[in-house]
Amino acid sequence: PSTSAAQFVAPSSDRPAVNVLPPLVSAAGIAREVTVESLTKKIRVLGQLEDSFIIATDPEGLLLIDQHVAHERILFDKYRALEAARTSESQNLLVPETFDLTPAQAAAFDAVAGELESYGFALMRLSGRTVAIKAVPADLPPSEARNILAEVLETIDAEKRGAARATLRDEIAASLACRAAIKINMPLTEEKMRWLIDRLLTTSSPTTCPHGRPIILRLKKRDIEKAFHRP
Amino acid sequence: PSTSAAQFVAPSSDRPAVNVLPPLVSAAGIAREVTVESLTKKIRVLGQLEDSFIIATDPEGLLLIDQHVAHERILFDKYRALEAARTSESQNLLVPETFDLTPAQAAAFDAVAGELESYGFALMRLSGRTVAIKAVPADLPPSEARNILAEVLETIDAEKRGAARATLRDEIAASLACRAAIKINMPLTEEKMRWLIDRLLTTSSPTTCPHGRPIILRLKKRDIEKAFHRP
Ligand SMILES: [Zn+2]
Ligand SMILES: [Zn+2]
Ligand SMILES: [Zn+2]
Ligand SMILES: [Zn+2]
Repeated sequence: PSTSAAQFVAPSSDRPAVNVLPPLVSAAGIAREVTVESLTKKIRVLGQLEDSFIIATDPEGLLLIDQHVAHERILFDKYRALEAARTSESQNLLVPETFDLTPAQAAAFDAVAGELESYGFALMRLSGRTVAIKAVPADLPPSEARNILAEVLETIDAEKRGAARATLRDEIAASLACRAAIKINMPLTEEKMRWLIDRLLTTSSPTTCPHGRPIILRLKKRDIEKAFHRP
Repeated sequence: PSTSAAQFVAPSSDRPAVNVLPPLVSAAGIAREVTVESLTKKIRVLGQLEDSFIIATDPEGLLLIDQHVAHERILFDKYRALEAARTSESQNLLVPETFDLTPAQAAAFDAVAGELESYGFALMRLSGRTVAIKAVPADLPPSEARNILAEVLETIDAEKRGAARATLRDEIAASLACRAAIKINMPLTEEKMRWLIDRLLTTSSPTTCPHGRPIILRLKKRDIEKAFHRP
């Protein structure tokens, strides 16, 4: 096939100092099914992007892993398993904290107090709408006991209070896991990245967080080649 | 905002062992203009994918660099600059090789013999359609002298022989650069990757190879966040 002369870009000092990067890939070409087994095997960590995403390779291509939701999935499974086994872990506060509930929070509290305790909260309803927090679930920062309780009660809105117990338990576990998980914009050592991936692969759903967000994205080798116009 | 119960994925032993990875990005969201200056500064090498593509980060996001076309661009600029300065570098063959031209190759040869010599070939037309190759341009494997000459003559097809000298020179330089450049499916040390990027950034066109193919693709930070459903 003949190549037109216009395609050649020769050295020249008067070219503008701006280059246009061509498009990468169409979304349609990227969506892939992967088996958990194929994920498990040969994931190699390359490094971290923006202190937020783990960049890795596997035999199928390039992987991007959101470090927060990866950890969230790990903790969600852990909280659910501990709760199911009735062996939740608590951290006692040095000094119990009191928390004044809003009327909406008070209603939510009454609906889920049992679930909260089954996850490791130790709570005591005092006079009026005041609650004493004596312990929080494992992995959470005890110094944020009030914020954590408020956040969990927020997620249990009026509509949900009639929901099945199992659903409430999932929502609470997801809220706790989100709170306890490492955030984005946090540098991770290679060991920590390796640990996250290894643990993630043992969870019930390594590709989706408890709220339904993607944890792993893959650029397939073939799609990268196409984007580089490779046959 | 309320979260529907269906979004929760709880641990369960009867879930199928297949997960669907969601789409990454739309092509439209990825095409970006970058200044050469922005490229020059803070590119950090993460590693190599499939022994073919350099994975790196810069302040704008994730970079994928095709190692073959990156090197091709570097060598193209070098060949053009040496030719323009009339200082091409040659490697003499220990024993000159003879090469029998096809009729088409013979016609191409007559049209571009001068250009070939200006790039460092030392050639002598013998009887009939036989040519003796005494030297090849720098960076090329002398053991492949015959193949290289055949390949260059292939790119100068009938249609092109009437083209401007400058165009012929670009085509020959592109063909030589393609031949001399490192291939894909070749492991590179981190030092070599670093060298390729640093040299690429000094070329006339760090984002496009002499044949018009992309050298660098970028996944913008914002597009990655969107693909992970991050606000
Ligand atoms: Zn979260
Ligand atoms: Zn989530
Ligand atoms: Zn090439
Ligand atoms: Zn090329």
